[in-house]
Amino acid sequence: MTQILPKQIIHTIDELAKLPSIGPKTAERLTMYLVRFGDPKRLGESLENLREGLQFCAQCHSFATTELCELCQDPGRDDSVIAVVAHPLDIVAVERTGSFQGRYHVLHGVLSPIDGIGPSQLKIDSLMSRIIATDPTEIILATNATVEGETTAMYIAKQLADKSIRVTRLAQGMPVGADVEYADQVTLSRALTGRTEIAV
Amino acid sequence: MTQILPKQIIHTIDELAKLPSIGPKTAERLTMYLVRFGDPKRLGESLENLREGLQFCAQCHSFATTELCELCQDPGRDDSVIAVVAHPLDIVAVERTGSFQGRYHVLHGVLSPIDGIGPSQLKIDSLMSRIIATDPTEIILATNATVEGETTAMYIAKQLADKSIRVTRLAQGMPVGADVEYADQVTLSRALTGRTEIAV
Repeated sequence: MTQILPKQIIHTIDELAKLPSIGPKTAERLTMYLVRFGDPKRLGESLENLREGLQFCAQCHSFATTELCELCQDPGRDDSVIAVVAHPLDIVAVERTGSFQGRYHVLHGVLSPIDGIGPSQLKIDSLMSRIIATDPTEIILATNATVEGETTAMYIAKQLADKSIRVTRLAQGMPVGADVEYADQVTLSRALTGRTEIAV
Repeated sequence: MTQILPKQIIHTIDELAKLPSIGPKTAERLTMYLVRFGDPKRLGESLENLREGLQFCAQCHSFATTELCELCQDPGRDDSVIAVVAHPLDIVAVERTGSFQGRYHVLHGVLSPIDGIGPSQLKIDSLMSRIIATDPTEIILATNATVEGETTAMYIAKQLADKSIRVTRLAQGMPVGADVEYADQVTLSRALTGRTEIAV
């Protein structure tokens, strides 16, 4: 059969269309953009190197290129607080706030019986050994404010109940900029429960 | 500053986020998918080769890797009909129908005075010389059913008015599977105007 378009264009469309949330039409549009305006060589090089030397940090299980990730190696971080997150990208979000100076621990998921994900599929055992080994004073359970995130936080909190360690959860309430009128009732109810004193 | 995630991950996120319709969050999600499940090397290689030897066909102006594209070189196509399209991907769409055996001509855009695109920015002169040289019997103006697409088709049709050549336009009407009840009035009006006899 005659090739309608050169094979490198077809290949790129096919490969892009394999990505989640990118259908064949989007893959076509992206390829046309890359042919004409973008920098396909730069993106191509990044992708070729993406998995180069990539591993999981032996301590926090985030991505690393050495045995310990850069955050775990950083001597300037506070060892007494560990923020427990579901995924490596959650670390990026917390770091962007600039409000946290402690360490991290990545669970690599949340408890989800329906998907067959129990405690042994997550890095919970490793968190327990790490807590015994490094003796932090506080564990912040920074999982999502979803049913799975809450269940996971609750499960870990129970495991830590017999230890003299402060176990906290991210505050739940009104997101900044939100209207009381349009807030859903669960959020508003949590915001009421967690109300804070105005310091004057 | 400490690198939160390894640099190859950051680079890939940054490069993907430069693509149209892909924001930073989507770029993050795509990168995580590629790290864990996808084939970043394959996609990377395709992208690195994307512009390799790529040129425009000297006859139809679609993409090619030789002076003439494969479709223009194909001796099995019908030289007497030329379908005029706006972009190379339109050729792919027409070819998928399997209902067209003629040749193509890519305009590389449509007339759009607001964007400063006039006849000289499009491959219209080249179409005229090609018509004189190859003497086809029909020109199908297969531009989009939009204001710009129609204007472009009308402009080309006027240029060809003094030639004894059949100039046609893609039929406009109800898309297959559409409800009359929900059809917009312009589409329904075109479908009425272009109504066809039922052959029994």
